[in-house]
Amino acid sequence: MKYISILFFFLISFCHAQDVDVNKKLQELGIQLTELKPPIANYVKAVQTGKLLFLSGHIPDEVVGKKTRGKVGSQLTVEEGKEAARITTIGLLSTLQYYAGSLNNVKRIVKVNGMVNADPSFTQHPAVMNGCSDLLVAVFGEAGRHARAAVGMASLPFDAAVEIEMIVELK
Amino acid sequence: MKYISILFFFLISFCHAQDVDVNKKLQELGIQLTELKPPIANYVKAVQTGKLLFLSGHIPDEVVGKKTRGKVGSQLTVEEGKEAARITTIGLLSTLQYYAGSLNNVKRIVKVNGMVNADPSFTQHPAVMNGCSDLLVAVFGEAGRHARAAVGMASLPFDAAVEIEMIVELK
Amino acid sequence: MKYISILFFFLISFCHAQDVDVNKKLQELGIQLTELKPPIANYVKAVQTGKLLFLSGHIPDEVVGKKTRGKVGSQLTVEEGKEAARITTIGLLSTLQYYAGSLNNVKRIVKVNGMVNADPSFTQHPAVMNGCSDLLVAVFGEAGRHARAAVGMASLPFDAAVEIEMIVELK
Repeated sequence: MKYISILFFFLISFCHAQDVDVNKKLQELGIQLTELKPPIANYVKAVQTGKLLFLSGHIPDEVVGKKTRGKVGSQLTVEEGKEAARITTIGLLSTLQYYAGSLNNVKRIVKVNGMVNADPSFTQHPAVMNGCSDLLVAVFGEAGRHARAAVGMASLPFDAAVEIEMIVELK
Repeated sequence: MKYISILFFFLISFCHAQDVDVNKKLQELGIQLTELKPPIANYVKAVQTGKLLFLSGHIPDEVVGKKTRGKVGSQLTVEEGKEAARITTIGLLSTLQYYAGSLNNVKRIVKVNGMVNADPSFTQHPAVMNGCSDLLVAVFGEAGRHARAAVGMASLPFDAAVEIEMIVELK
Repeated sequence: MKYISILFFFLISFCHAQDVDVNKKLQELGIQLTELKPPIANYVKAVQTGKLLFLSGHIPDEVVGKKTRGKVGSQLTVEEGKEAARITTIGLLSTLQYYAGSLNNVKRIVKVNGMVNADPSFTQHPAVMNGCSDLLVAVFGEAGRHARAAVGMASLPFDAAVEIEMIVELK
């Protein structure tokens, strides 16, 4: 009985420690998650099936002083596209936190689909999508490493610079 | 024993009631599912793994009096694109019925990927894809609400106005 | 006990026979899998969740005498695009072998997403993607038949002619 109590104590401590870590990590990175806006149609921001959470395609919030609309390669530089991918990922993390209860319930980021609104001659989609991948690994560590596709779209909703969707495994 | 029989009776009634509902819903909406045409290559229209059914990308059937080919935003209006998305969804439901045995075996529409054949300046992909999302919710109710991406392609097979794929959770 | 031994013997023979088959099939087709190069960013080539393996989007290796860069329909013919899809699939099989331990651990190719770097007027994406589908069925037989999407992108990383991603069910 004593051993079980001790085990239980460590389990609680461990879970709590983990919980503090991810939130601390977000603070360290100066990231404030946004409030979830309801989708404007007959779809939802994420659906869970078994342990997998499928997140809808997200576009970047409009942020003062940041270019998040237009085609990367002609209207936006690679760096601006990368920043737009990072902003989009903050939106994805906000949705993820809402549906998963806590970001600490994330077991693994499984798959990221990075769709860049790009000029037909554009070739640096991976550099743009690193704005997403780097943030995921900064927040989740090894659990943030994901399979990925990075491709160029002819157009995107509201002329967003990127649209990103994710599949996440929950604990 | 008597209680089990009663339980069994209600269970049967309940299942049957549900079965009538979805088919009735299709009738109410005036939707006739199409017969499944075999794919023209080394792929299939859907593959089930566990409880998940992955449906191939579907393009709209050619329907007399409807514009289902060409680029939305230049050759098709948003409304015509939306109608093309609705026609494509009827094809998806036909495939779904075939592979799931019955549409009543659908637990949840998990993910919809809406790929619109769009002019590079097009921005209203969500409005086009509502032609799919609205029909799914009309048919399945809450179980029809899905995660979604809506994006713009440079080109699509046979110049189709949209191509849509789905992931569905079965009961 | 004797029967169990015999059963065990057949089981071992059967497994071994299967193992020989797929590797033999690759040899017959004259296919040499490539060595896995590490990805150049904070993502990985594949992530497994449950029995599902999600493979990253792969582009074709550059092969002497083969055209694997440029837009299909204007800079590459359909046949060249199909060959690029085949080369990409050899890369996918190499990744698959690495993550699955052996190609014999593949239960089913579930989903293939074929993204063709195509001219806006291009319409023969399925013909291009048959370069992938035909090889998968040649290697895995019935287990190689998959759900598929074939679509046209505005642009792709490094101007690759195709980018292909896969979901695979493991045994």
